[in-house]
Amino acid sequence: MARIVMKFGGTSVADMDRIRNVARHVKREVDAGHEVAVVVSAMSGKTNELVSWTRDASPMHDAREYDSVVASGEQVTSGLLAIALQHLGINARSWQGWQIPIKTDNAHGAARILEINGDEIVRRMGEGQVAVVAGFQGLGPDNRISTLGRGGSDTSAVAIAAAVKADRCDIYTDVDGVYTTDPRIEPKARRLKKIAFEEMLEMASLGAKVLQVRSVELAMVFKVRTFVRSSFEDPDAPGMGDLLNPPGTLICDEEEIVEQEVVTGIAYAKDEAQISLRRLADRPGVSAAIFGPLAENHINVDMIVQNISEDGSKTDMTFTVPSGDVEKAIRVLSEHKGGIGYDVIQHESGLVKVSVIGIGMRSHAGVAASAFRALAEKGINIKAITTSEIKISILIDGAYAELAVRTLHSCYGLDKS
Amino acid sequence: MARIVMKFGGTSVADMDRIRNVARHVKREVDAGHEVAVVVSAMSGKTNELVSWTRDASPMHDAREYDSVVASGEQVTSGLLAIALQHLGINARSWQGWQIPIKTDNAHGAARILEINGDEIVRRMGEGQVAVVAGFQGLGPDNRISTLGRGGSDTSAVAIAAAVKADRCDIYTDVDGVYTTDPRIEPKARRLKKIAFEEMLEMASLGAKVLQVRSVELAMVFKVRTFVRSSFEDPDAPGMGDLLNPPGTLICDEEEIVEQEVVTGIAYAKDEAQISLRRLADRPGVSAAIFGPLAENHINVDMIVQNISEDGSKTDMTFTVPSGDVEKAIRVLSEHKGGIGYDVIQHESGLVKVSVIGIGMRSHAGVAASAFRALAEKGINIKAITTSEIKISILIDGAYAELAVRTLHSCYGLDKS
Repeated sequence: MARIVMKFGGTSVADMDRIRNVARHVKREVDAGHEVAVVVSAMSGKTNELVSWTRDASPMHDAREYDSVVASGEQVTSGLLAIALQHLGINARSWQGWQIPIKTDNAHGAARILEINGDEIVRRMGEGQVAVVAGFQGLGPDNRISTLGRGGSDTSAVAIAAAVKADRCDIYTDVDGVYTTDPRIEPKARRLKKIAFEEMLEMASLGAKVLQVRSVELAMVFKVRTFVRSSFEDPDAPGMGDLLNPPGTLICDEEEIVEQEVVTGIAYAKDEAQISLRRLADRPGVSAAIFGPLAENHINVDMIVQNISEDGSKTDMTFTVPSGDVEKAIRVLSEHKGGIGYDVIQHESGLVKVSVIGIGMRSHAGVAASAFRALAEKGINIKAITTSEIKISILIDGAYAELAVRTLHSCYGLDKS
Repeated sequence: MARIVMKFGGTSVADMDRIRNVARHVKREVDAGHEVAVVVSAMSGKTNELVSWTRDASPMHDAREYDSVVASGEQVTSGLLAIALQHLGINARSWQGWQIPIKTDNAHGAARILEINGDEIVRRMGEGQVAVVAGFQGLGPDNRISTLGRGGSDTSAVAIAAAVKADRCDIYTDVDGVYTTDPRIEPKARRLKKIAFEEMLEMASLGAKVLQVRSVELAMVFKVRTFVRSSFEDPDAPGMGDLLNPPGTLICDEEEIVEQEVVTGIAYAKDEAQISLRRLADRPGVSAAIFGPLAENHINVDMIVQNISEDGSKTDMTFTVPSGDVEKAIRVLSEHKGGIGYDVIQHESGLVKVSVIGIGMRSHAGVAASAFRALAEKGINIKAITTSEIKISILIDGAYAELAVRTLHSCYGLDKS
């Protein structure tokens, strides 16, 4: 017997037929003798509809009212799934965020979970009752409904799993796991059996949109073993009820991954823009003078590369921002030209960042060199490079995105099973 | 300065344009210096959609889950209206039933309000904040969302008005008041300026579906002065902000109605069926033997007429039930034939009950006689009669319904202003 948290996203609960299908997935685990809590999103499209109504009501809407309106989507799904489970003879009840309660901070619209008391749910799970928890929401210190921001149901699920000390957190979605790269670009991409938390964090934040970044962070902190798997497979197909290795990708501690590959996957992020400040005064505080005003204007800076110029008194600074922010960034930097002290500002849009990710590269030399060589052989020009312990990111012209992904995927042997 | 509760039904908040219109009605009262609480229904059609989903999930759904799903409709409207009010520069916040809390009993799906602590709302109204309350819902003793049954938002509004000691409860709907009879049948029907609680109760329960019966009962008990008025009029038209006599119908204590007419209105109820039990043993307990089993089978019996037969040992019993229940009633009565002891059972469907209502008839003789004479002159045959202190109900063939309503309306001079 295990204790399992199962999370179903919007496409998995899109209508009553899909909700009935979810109930069959839950029944399979209940029938196997497991204690089960389920976390649900709103029916797909619902959240967008509710959000558009709040925007229509006023472009400057009160985040507390927004939360109350938008959280109703998960309230509906949780009640409907509880009824559908009861219809299959399963003891189940719905829980809204304020009923458990899932206590959050006061940052309405993007709240962070502070505390979940899982005692009552654990007690009821012990009595055979399935808890159906409305995802994406909690209760703020003002006793009002808070929401965790888009995709927050993943975070709800991992937090509930940590609170009830679940053996597994299964994230059911419309893909059947995490792949070595985007299969739409490289058909030879393989589903990973396991991926380390740190690797998944890089994959998630770099554009492999399977799981919300915050949920992976939370899973890493509380060591919640998290399976990404598909709700669209037959709930009763062979292996679906496998306790140790259900079909999907396990996100886990690196120690649980025995045969660690050097490189785990290739991620990419489109629509990057590069901004270069030429002939900066090379003095302490110049970085703060550049990035302080950008942060104040909510411009998200990613890669940063600094070169020392020939005579040592002047330097060049290059960094990337999302393409949509490039005009705003240049306006902000121009306004602060005096304080920063640069000569020329240059920019280029339509770039792509391709990243090679793998915990194994910590103990292997030459991983970066292989990438550079492989890209050079295809005539792909590298505009900037940043590296971390487990990641190499390379900025290139957007036209070469697919070619670069396929080249790197093959370069590290990821297309061979 | 007054304290006003304003209630808006589903058609009044059907979309964002209608919600913005509601915000203008509220702004008018706020600008006049009044303290305002608003009670809202779900957008029209929303409740039906949510109910149909719960039925689709399981025909035998858990009423607690049903409540949680269905109450989300009012949650959405209350948040959207709060945002729309803020957009007009009005300080406003939404309140869900569980936040106030509106404490109810545990009868999920048809809960009764037990207690509302209005202190916090009164305090905030004193600071100029408009309370936007989600109607139709409360918090059960199990700490779960309860709903008051269809049309329950009227009851919420009157209960909130009683809790905050409001000077007025304005029920905004898609009609502009209570009429002497249905204007679709009698175009000469006039809008009443005032109607007594007791009269409105008879009008409401007899088919003039302006207000839910329970809300009128509650208004009567707590003496809540209740205006029925239209949300479809221009919020800023002349007279709309009149404190003492806004356009609409005031439902109030009879003492407030100085020039009481003998008859206030003519109501009717379609689809009645008559059941007669012939040659019953005229013994104590025979009524209980008939109506006990009917009540146990949830068959709502309305008019009851008993005649003594010629020799005094046998009697006839005639009563009405809704047409839809007639087959079930006959099956139940047949099953209990032995216990009841009757000779023959007869029934007739497609009947209509027409009622003459007026507090003034308590002190006027001959009101009933006028009705019988007027109907006889039109050749309308009376099948049964019941009377109360303020009402005469007459059962007739359905084909004569409109003719009877118009005849009685004219007979008491209701078509003359």
